[in-house]
Amino acid sequence: MSTSASPFSHRHFPASRLETLGDGVFAIAMTVLVLGIQVPDVSGPGALTAHLITLWPKLASYALSFVMLGVLWIGHYYQFQYIRRADRGLIWLNLFFLLAVTFLPFGAGVLGNSYQDWVAVLLYGGTILAAGTALLLHWAHATARPELVISELTPVVEARLRGRIIAGLACSAVAMAIGAVDTRISLGVFLAMPFVYMRRTRAERELARAS
Amino acid sequence: MSTSASPFSHRHFPASRLETLGDGVFAIAMTVLVLGIQVPDVSGPGALTAHLITLWPKLASYALSFVMLGVLWIGHYYQFQYIRRADRGLIWLNLFFLLAVTFLPFGAGVLGNSYQDWVAVLLYGGTILAAGTALLLHWAHATARPELVISELTPVVEARLRGRIIAGLACSAVAMAIGAVDTRISLGVFLAMPFVYMRRTRAERELARAS
Amino acid sequence: MSTSASPFSHRHFPASRLETLGDGVFAIAMTVLVLGIQVPDVSGPGALTAHLITLWPKLASYALSFVMLGVLWIGHYYQFQYIRRADRGLIWLNLFFLLAVTFLPFGAGVLGNSYQDWVAVLLYGGTILAAGTALLLHWAHATARPELVISELTPVVEARLRGRIIAGLACSAVAMAIGAVDTRISLGVFLAMPFVYMRRTRAERELARAS
Amino acid sequence: MSTSASPFSHRHFPASRLETLGDGVFAIAMTVLVLGIQVPDVSGPGALTAHLITLWPKLASYALSFVMLGVLWIGHYYQFQYIRRADRGLIWLNLFFLLAVTFLPFGAGVLGNSYQDWVAVLLYGGTILAAGTALLLHWAHATARPELVISELTPVVEARLRGRIIAGLACSAVAMAIGAVDTRISLGVFLAMPFVYMRRTRAERELARAS
Repeated sequence: MSTSASPFSHRHFPASRLETLGDGVFAIAMTVLVLGIQVPDVSGPGALTAHLITLWPKLASYALSFVMLGVLWIGHYYQFQYIRRADRGLIWLNLFFLLAVTFLPFGAGVLGNSYQDWVAVLLYGGTILAAGTALLLHWAHATARPELVISELTPVVEARLRGRIIAGLACSAVAMAIGAVDTRISLGVFLAMPFVYMRRTRAERELARAS
Repeated sequence: MSTSASPFSHRHFPASRLETLGDGVFAIAMTVLVLGIQVPDVSGPGALTAHLITLWPKLASYALSFVMLGVLWIGHYYQFQYIRRADRGLIWLNLFFLLAVTFLPFGAGVLGNSYQDWVAVLLYGGTILAAGTALLLHWAHATARPELVISELTPVVEARLRGRIIAGLACSAVAMAIGAVDTRISLGVFLAMPFVYMRRTRAERELARAS
Repeated sequence: MSTSASPFSHRHFPASRLETLGDGVFAIAMTVLVLGIQVPDVSGPGALTAHLITLWPKLASYALSFVMLGVLWIGHYYQFQYIRRADRGLIWLNLFFLLAVTFLPFGAGVLGNSYQDWVAVLLYGGTILAAGTALLLHWAHATARPELVISELTPVVEARLRGRIIAGLACSAVAMAIGAVDTRISLGVFLAMPFVYMRRTRAERELARAS
Repeated sequence: MSTSASPFSHRHFPASRLETLGDGVFAIAMTVLVLGIQVPDVSGPGALTAHLITLWPKLASYALSFVMLGVLWIGHYYQFQYIRRADRGLIWLNLFFLLAVTFLPFGAGVLGNSYQDWVAVLLYGGTILAAGTALLLHWAHATARPELVISELTPVVEARLRGRIIAGLACSAVAMAIGAVDTRISLGVFLAMPFVYMRRTRAERELARAS
């Protein structure tokens, strides 16, 4: 691994293990989300169906949180297409990002239990905000240091990735604030966020046409 | 990683991290299956044996689900022998596939508790169906875009992988329907599915002879 | 990944993802072992110490099982130094090996709760036996197919790895049988096994001198 | 993998899978920390906030332990920038290091429940000490064998990595001893440790200037 980096440096290391650790944390966070839902153990006609229906807020929180983790993972994945080396600062920003990611299953559990409570929405949205902020600082740290990124990274791409994170932070802040009025609207905003991320932005389409 | 892709593109990324994330999710889903089974804490002569025997539906559901995850993992593994790059659509189809995979431990728990209930069979089979459908769309998306797959991918291989997924979907649908009559026959069909996948198909044998 | 294999074949795939999945399953099995031990929540002077002391059979079972997983992981790791490609049969033998590995945390939990019960020792030892047998078949399958292994694999190395697995199987069988007399002797034999694996064998030392 | 090592040796294997297993164990240990905190299920105005506030020792133990795992992971990550091959001794030292890592979630749970009990601080600090000692032996084993490390490893770097581990061990020992007086000061020392690791040392800065 280290020998592939040229010239060899004792301050900058290949970024590949940050990706491996990140993929591991995301894979586990995605998978343990469902462990928070107690498996029903009921009998009698219709009892299982009735029980599963009562689980809908937990199941919705699980699906929402999985997709949120997907959005955050894609953000991490995209950044590492351009980041090739890591210094100590980047490693710690990566760890703080992952700290927020590992907290999401707890936030998801609270939301599944108490989705009508604004505090649950604030805790959940706050976790997303913390992860997004860490991702933003991670990107800013890397792009401010040419030795950490590949030469193909253009200012357009740099700004596009930054803009996507900021848009997500703004959406989360709005969703959290709306919770003061009605937490169900908050959840709607959170649910809409991934769909916005799923479609290509205009900037991306222009970039695609140009490349 | 990114530098190995030539020519460099801001729309298409190397597929390797989709494999890493997928392997992580499968590894965890396979391992947490057994965590759903309460470890017995009994004493007295014969008590442990008696208790372990009562756990047989849970143990059977665990073994079945592990093998099902194996079948799905092999499907994912085979596709990525031919997929070399990913676009946003493929990333999301991959995530929806993994969402169904992470739900399987819950479905397996319900099946272990209530295997005689058709609802449990429908929930379990529905999870397999969802995962299979996502895998099918994933393959269709990739193979419709020559820039995402390797040039060695032939139409025969493309059709063979597609056919294997469709056969699995059909089997699962049959198993679910039969549950209306007797859920034990459903489980028999689910149990038989992996054995079908374990042997080489005629098309594969012909291909092997030709290559 | 796939392009690095030359000549390209639709029957044989690079073995690297079997390693990734295996590493994931082992990493998780090793880490969830400790989750089976209930974290004490006591207060009062000496209460925590007293409680921790009562946990010793569980803590011993956790440490023993971690080391057992280490022995099995090393067996897997060593084989894949020589295996470079996988066919369908090898993939399934790998999955059956991992199935036994994922069951070990359950066996470890039972052993921690009921280490004085021969049934617990048989369940635990049976899991080790199943994993070892799958590892033996995995090695036999790979080494019988020259296209799956690297050309540097010599008959001496092939026999040495096979011999190590068979020795482990024999030890486990002895430990299980001794449990009929006294389960504590069984545990002693299990505990001694890793130490045997930790030292280099005479064959290995000779090989080292020759290489 | 194995073919990239030249000349081929039956005693020394590429170190990459030790990194993969390590990344997996760390990723899981980091993610399961939060699973030890019971998700509140309360209702009524202010009940959720009140409950979350009572969880502060558990939440603090989770954050502290995540950062501690980060420090240990960085130590592991840095070593493997210089270690390119593994022998049996290194594999086992790596496993003993990971054994201590997998125990940290248990120690973190005990600390979260009983942070005012010196025994909890001793158990927690002892786990850090065990992991640090294994890391130190791991580094000593590797650097004493030129065939296991890359040629770019200089005595300065070797001593620097060793010094960082020893400093961490000393800090942990001090934190444990202080617990006899007041466990809250112990926790303060543990909390301060990562911040020390986050900043570059003087030796590092000099090295950076020289390189």
